[in-house]
Amino acid sequence: MENFSSKLLQAAVEEFSKLPGIGRKTSLRLVLHLLRQEKEDVSFFANAIERLRKEVVYCKTCHNISDKEICDICSSPRRDKSLICVVEDLRDVIAIENTGQYHGLYHVLGGIISPMDGIGPDDLQIESLIKRINNSSVQEIILALSTTMEGDTTNFYIYRKLEDKKIKISAIARGIAIGDELEYADEVTLGRSIMNRTPYQLNIPNPR
Amino acid sequence: MENFSSKLLQAAVEEFSKLPGIGRKTSLRLVLHLLRQEKEDVSFFANAIERLRKEVVYCKTCHNISDKEICDICSSPRRDKSLICVVEDLRDVIAIENTGQYHGLYHVLGGIISPMDGIGPDDLQIESLIKRINNSSVQEIILALSTTMEGDTTNFYIYRKLEDKKIKISAIARGIAIGDELEYADEVTLGRSIMNRTPYQLNIPNPR
Repeated sequence: MENFSSKLLQAAVEEFSKLPGIGRKTSLRLVLHLLRQEKEDVSFFANAIERLRKEVVYCKTCHNISDKEICDICSSPRRDKSLICVVEDLRDVIAIENTGQYHGLYHVLGGIISPMDGIGPDDLQIESLIKRINNSSVQEIILALSTTMEGDTTNFYIYRKLEDKKIKISAIARGIAIGDELEYADEVTLGRSIMNRTPYQLNIPNPR
Repeated sequence: MENFSSKLLQAAVEEFSKLPGIGRKTSLRLVLHLLRQEKEDVSFFANAIERLRKEVVYCKTCHNISDKEICDICSSPRRDKSLICVVEDLRDVIAIENTGQYHGLYHVLGGIISPMDGIGPDDLQIESLIKRINNSSVQEIILALSTTMEGDTTNFYIYRKLEDKKIKISAIARGIAIGDELEYADEVTLGRSIMNRTPYQLNIPNPR
């Protein structure tokens, strides 16, 4: 334990070092940085953290993080309401939104089935997904979970729950990343990308 | 810029990514971590940051960070008031305190003379050091600044200001670190450690 000359400094350093991946030295560096900033800026920072935890809610429809009961994506008239993309968590929503290629809705499971971590189907938003599909005009769901054993298990579980419904179930394409060289690709990915080959398309520049 | 479904989330991520060495991805990871914590714990974190910046002061004697006008080190009756160690910033105080080997006082300059960064002697707590020495019974000052050109310049500047006073001026020992092998030491350090050789002492285990 370091010898700090200030209890306030010590308290702040201890709070920062509780964050994942932030050690004591980094924590001290961050705290000293804040000490050099304007009082208002530091208040703003503290306030953003406090409000985040107190005011943020989960969208009642898709369980994504939101400022309102129904999130901006679910309530937008410009989104295709016949399409739901099933993802593990918020970060996946951000990643897909950043592509600018998807205009449907989402369903955030809040994790994947992982018996090793004690996470079963009932801990995830799977039941609410089934209800949502029953009560709406959804025509297709896209499974976009990790390609791990846990992801595959979750995909299969959802598939079994939905197979007798009149709904298209697809999964995002897996294959060699654009720009990657074949010789460095792992065998499983390369094998799947051959099995799931697609009709050849001329690479026409994006018309937008 | 990422597409967040929540303005509160976006604000918190932006605040965190202003910190040095924290990128957008790390920032999002930290914010999602905070979202999973208890409300009280997050309030405590926000509060520690706010109080730190609002209530922390600099000790009027040594300019170290403190909760009171005079810091715990300067006001302690157990510290040797005839000895002042001159350091660049708070981190050096913490490092020296952690050794448990030093029982004198400190003087925190708040930086070192660096014309390239526009930092001159007047931007540092050098004048207050001279005054402090004039007005007290200090017998020795120990210069513990970095061994860079800026550190050497600052050492020399302080030395010139104090050379006609009846006071011992020393500098911390530089040499090969304990446990280091000679063949990997740089020439300057090795050269200095030969010039500044010390009388051989039998390595008697610490009696404490």
